[in-house]
Amino acid sequence: MHFSKDRINTLDSRTRAHFINSLSGFKSANLIGTQDVQGHTNLSIVSSVFHLGANPALVGMIIRPHCVPRHTFENILQTGFYTINQVNQAIYSQAHQTSARYDKQQSEFDMTGLTTEYLDDFKAPFVKQSQLKYSVKLVEHQHLAVNGTELVIGEIIDVYVDENAVKADGFIDLHAIDTVAISGLDSYHTTTQLARLPYAKK
Amino acid sequence: MHFSKDRINTLDSRTRAHFINSLSGFKSANLIGTQDVQGHTNLSIVSSVFHLGANPALVGMIIRPHCVPRHTFENILQTGFYTINQVNQAIYSQAHQTSARYDKQQSEFDMTGLTTEYLDDFKAPFVKQSQLKYSVKLVEHQHLAVNGTELVIGEIIDVYVDENAVKADGFIDLHAIDTVAISGLDSYHTTTQLARLPYAKK
Repeated sequence: MHFSKDRINTLDSRTRAHFINSLSGFKSANLIGTQDVQGHTNLSIVSSVFHLGANPALVGMIIRPHCVPRHTFENILQTGFYTINQVNQAIYSQAHQTSARYDKQQSEFDMTGLTTEYLDDFKAPFVKQSQLKYSVKLVEHQHLAVNGTELVIGEIIDVYVDENAVKADGFIDLHAIDTVAISGLDSYHTTTQLARLPYAKK
Repeated sequence: MHFSKDRINTLDSRTRAHFINSLSGFKSANLIGTQDVQGHTNLSIVSSVFHLGANPALVGMIIRPHCVPRHTFENILQTGFYTINQVNQAIYSQAHQTSARYDKQQSEFDMTGLTTEYLDDFKAPFVKQSQLKYSVKLVEHQHLAVNGTELVIGEIIDVYVDENAVKADGFIDLHAIDTVAISGLDSYHTTTQLARLPYAKK
């Protein structure tokens, strides 16, 4: 089945969004925890978090500043800090609900029943129910003029993870902590490991 | 279990790479098809492809220019075109093998037994065995000085997908076409859908 650029252009915007959002494959499911300088907390699900480098330990994400999670981006700019919390099977519905357009005064923690957790004096809230979470310090953000999105790059500081999930070689078994994957705009998935493959040699 | 920045810094580089690569969650599994101006083909697995926007239809990826897939980046700069091919369960071992450091004269298609396919006169090869693939035109690339990686942004042109996988609302059922997800550096996963959730309202 062939969808040409012209045919894609004829799709209504919601259909087009579902279709194009499916093309990149499975996406990570993460909750971004922030607060403003007054301490008002915010939590938003983001499916565009990606690995950027291991040394230095860097993580990237794409934010649409004019949509949800606008407050997330504002808080990150204000404070320079945020948390990334992997979404697991027990909380995926609550995580999805954070994408509703709550007012600035409404904390998504309160609205969804997820619990704030403060660890090691870090100035942004973690999600207590998440089993893999880490504190991040903003390094830089770049406005992508091509479509008005923001690339946000942060340095990974402290990592909190269930001990049983961390293997001797450093690999973390995301299946063991029920981390979910996203496809499209709204589909959530558990995973089954096929295999870990050895380093490829020619 | 708490891994502080100092503790992470004591990990040897391979352990650290496994650990940090696990933090972002599940990643997409895609093969990038390119060729140089002489028509020599190249294929490389990339786990950093991400959705950038639906209108215009844009896809991003992070490339490490000094590592595999260096030839991929060179070919994209030379020709301005590439293909993105989702990796499915039947070909994930071959897809992983494309990460070996083959010489420029060796095509990963030949080395791994994956099959080139040319569609609608597009000037880069597709992977015949992939069930969701699309042609991409380079829009821009940005050097990320923070760690020497390249952000490559492309426009999605023509999409080829199994008809049965495309739902009435535009959503593509990646489970139906056996698309896999990656975690860490080397772990491959099939998925089971938990649910599609309705648009979140406050």
